[in-house]
Amino acid sequence: MRDRPTVASTRYELLARELEQQIAAGVLRPGDRLPSVRQTCASRGLSPSTVFQAYYLLESRGLVRAAPRSGYFVAARPGGVLLAEPQTSEPQSGSQAVEVNDLIYAILGSARARDIVPFGSAFPSPTLFPLDRLRRALVSSTRRLEPWNMVEDLPPGNLRLKREIAKRYLRQGLAIATDEIVLTHGAMEALNLCLNAVARAGDAVVVESPTFYVALQALQRLGLRAIEVPTHCREGIDLGRLEQVIELYRPKACWLMTTFQNPLGSLMPETKKRDLVALLARHDLPLIEDDVYSELYEGNAAPLPAKAYDRRGLVLHCSSFSKCLAPGYRVGWAAPGQLAREVERLKLMTSLSGSIPVQAALAEYLQEGGYDRHLRSLRQSLQVQRDSLFDAVSRHFPDGTRVVRPAGGYFVWVELPVGVDAMALHRAALAQSISLAPGPMFSPRAEFQNHIRLTCGQHWNEALERATRTLARLVNDAPRTDAPSQTPI
Amino acid sequence: MRDRPTVASTRYELLARELEQQIAAGVLRPGDRLPSVRQTCASRGLSPSTVFQAYYLLESRGLVRAAPRSGYFVAARPGGVLLAEPQTSEPQSGSQAVEVNDLIYAILGSARARDIVPFGSAFPSPTLFPLDRLRRALVSSTRRLEPWNMVEDLPPGNLRLKREIAKRYLRQGLAIATDEIVLTHGAMEALNLCLNAVARAGDAVVVESPTFYVALQALQRLGLRAIEVPTHCREGIDLGRLEQVIELYRPKACWLMTTFQNPLGSLMPETKKRDLVALLARHDLPLIEDDVYSELYEGNAAPLPAKAYDRRGLVLHCSSFSKCLAPGYRVGWAAPGQLAREVERLKLMTSLSGSIPVQAALAEYLQEGGYDRHLRSLRQSLQVQRDSLFDAVSRHFPDGTRVVRPAGGYFVWVELPVGVDAMALHRAALAQSISLAPGPMFSPRAEFQNHIRLTCGQHWNEALERATRTLARLVNDAPRTDAPSQTPI
Repeated sequence: MRDRPTVASTRYELLARELEQQIAAGVLRPGDRLPSVRQTCASRGLSPSTVFQAYYLLESRGLVRAAPRSGYFVAARPGGVLLAEPQTSEPQSGSQAVEVNDLIYAILGSARARDIVPFGSAFPSPTLFPLDRLRRALVSSTRRLEPWNMVEDLPPGNLRLKREIAKRYLRQGLAIATDEIVLTHGAMEALNLCLNAVARAGDAVVVESPTFYVALQALQRLGLRAIEVPTHCREGIDLGRLEQVIELYRPKACWLMTTFQNPLGSLMPETKKRDLVALLARHDLPLIEDDVYSELYEGNAAPLPAKAYDRRGLVLHCSSFSKCLAPGYRVGWAAPGQLAREVERLKLMTSLSGSIPVQAALAEYLQEGGYDRHLRSLRQSLQVQRDSLFDAVSRHFPDGTRVVRPAGGYFVWVELPVGVDAMALHRAALAQSISLAPGPMFSPRAEFQNHIRLTCGQHWNEALERATRTLARLVNDAPRTDAPSQTPI
Repeated sequence: MRDRPTVASTRYELLARELEQQIAAGVLRPGDRLPSVRQTCASRGLSPSTVFQAYYLLESRGLVRAAPRSGYFVAARPGGVLLAEPQTSEPQSGSQAVEVNDLIYAILGSARARDIVPFGSAFPSPTLFPLDRLRRALVSSTRRLEPWNMVEDLPPGNLRLKREIAKRYLRQGLAIATDEIVLTHGAMEALNLCLNAVARAGDAVVVESPTFYVALQALQRLGLRAIEVPTHCREGIDLGRLEQVIELYRPKACWLMTTFQNPLGSLMPETKKRDLVALLARHDLPLIEDDVYSELYEGNAAPLPAKAYDRRGLVLHCSSFSKCLAPGYRVGWAAPGQLAREVERLKLMTSLSGSIPVQAALAEYLQEGGYDRHLRSLRQSLQVQRDSLFDAVSRHFPDGTRVVRPAGGYFVWVELPVGVDAMALHRAALAQSISLAPGPMFSPRAEFQNHIRLTCGQHWNEALERATRTLARLVNDAPRTDAPSQTPI
């Protein structure tokens, strides 16, 4: 369980990324020669092996090619054009009872085996996380736990951890009181409790189209109806349409992922988040904000959540450490605004409290201060991985494919050529030991039949490149029908 | 965080208990002289200090008195008679919507502070648990965890732990398949998921009268109605009445604690459990069996659960390690019979998975084999503590009090003299830094207004004896009304 050697991998990845950006920006064009390894070593103070690693990486992605005894050259993109973005969906209007099909569990299960290429996984590679340091925090924090902590912290949860979470909000300018925070078993429990607090069986709730399947499962479990609203692949939910459905169908809440939406990867601009909060406030409508990916941003600062613009306590903000620090620890939280006490009670009623040793370990880890360093390294890795998968899809998938470079997170949403059946593709890919998440998982009406979500949670390598080529071949060879798929999820 | 010195305390407690049994059985009668310390040392091979400790313990409980230079004599019981048992309740017929009052949360919160005598706590003293050994298991098991375990075990949970749980069932003669077991965040989550699997909003569910308040909270959360059935303080629910309400009101399930019921401490005899299962099978009615206290038995073997008589998979058996091994770890499970896949999915939908490091630690601890030794020691401690609290109540509480010696677990249910208001007593006791659980918490109609549940989770000592006397004085001084309390919970 060794930590990843972050320094070494970062250097060559950074160099590769810089060159890739120059290629993307047209500074280096197809046929151009890259600076020689010797030149690059000299100009940047890097070792030859670092530079070679960067060039190999670019070569493995098909961005450059090696010419014997001549050096490296920028490769021509197949077709020479960028693929178009996925189109915004046009879901049926009205609310819809939710019935998640059995197949969703089989699909989720199939992504788990180690010998499967995990393009369908919901988690990034665990090797990206500081598991050794977390373990040391677990050891030292439990050494200091007193027996009475084992029952005293049931239920309010570890106060130090709540404080650390509140401090992280504060650094973003959000003044969240420590006692607004309800610790939960991952964001999933937080989201479920918040949904339970705002809606009763038969009520309707607004979701994005496409939406994260966990939202659909939660709606089904509570007997709620879904209202789907068109959601743009870069900018998130359509506010005009949202206002229409609010007025028409009187939903009881919205469940939205405003930052790096799953599966789209969309990032709602901050002004749009502000407008969203204002719109919901006009209608007294609570927003359940699922915000588990916001630490996985590009650039200098995490995007602000909609919660930042909430003055009335209508935003129930949910997040966790599962996607950015400790997937198996299952520690998340809600900051449920004016419904904090209600959510806390629901927590008390459903599972009493979190696991004391695990909460203490995270509190210790956060207090020690290595979290931001880890996050920087994780963000760099994911950025390279996003680019690699996006580029590979762009290069290999056939004409008619639509794909957008995600703004953060680790999902790439792909619209396949019209008539290609994502469910059939899922089965064919699984036969080749490749998992993926077919589009119908992300809709209560099993729409998005020619869409797939791919996960770039692994360090990019030749096997992933090959798997992308295999997928592209399966897409290319797939029968295409104009009629809806005969095998809806 | 040191483990309790179990050997030393066990010896004197065992001696004290043996003498106490001889007193209870009339072998030693009021006025009889106890064997001298010297005789007892010689006949039993004990040290003088051990024998003195035993005699001091009996003295602190008022069972014996010391006469200077003459030795120890059996004390006369005040009044000389045993108190009667609590009466079986006669709840209103029909089903009842559940609305748990805010006060319940305040009451639960009040039991938590360290400086309060925790007669109202739901947990035994954490010093009774092998926290050091658990910690070592946490350290060594996480050392062996591989990174991929952090996501591979999400969701099915730690397979080793499931196997250890299945092996413990097997030792009782119950053949539960490993994959029937769904790991949860404590029994509370297991119970909630099982309830979610068998009933929908508006349905009615049978509960005991009195019943554990968590059952009421769960019913409320899911919009279910409660049907209360009279429950005997030693033998559990009335099967004749159960059959009547099944035929009259067509409930969708029963939620029962068949072994050491909370709050009664009742233990349904095994033949009655068999009849219960047969009755429910005739009506195709699932039983949610809340069985978290069965390890806290007296005698040679744990009472079998109703699950042992289930041939059709209708019993959803729920338990945890929270009451007998690791309160703060929050690891429980369900063995939901034919609804195992349904419950597993609900688990997946609501909180995905348990905490990987904590599950691995418990698996390691159980495999190492010290669990049974710990349980023997815990059972001995709790037996002495149950006897001590029961005796203290019997001695100090006024005429008209009814109390039954619990068959296991760590709760003593007390019926106060008619007209004494348990809610007022709760407030008065809290002002004296003593918590307790007032009877109205255990009923959807806030009945049991002159009942309290006392917890004997601590090593008995002079402070607890004094607190019992204080409670007795408060009961004695309490105004008594024939009218129902003006302050229902």
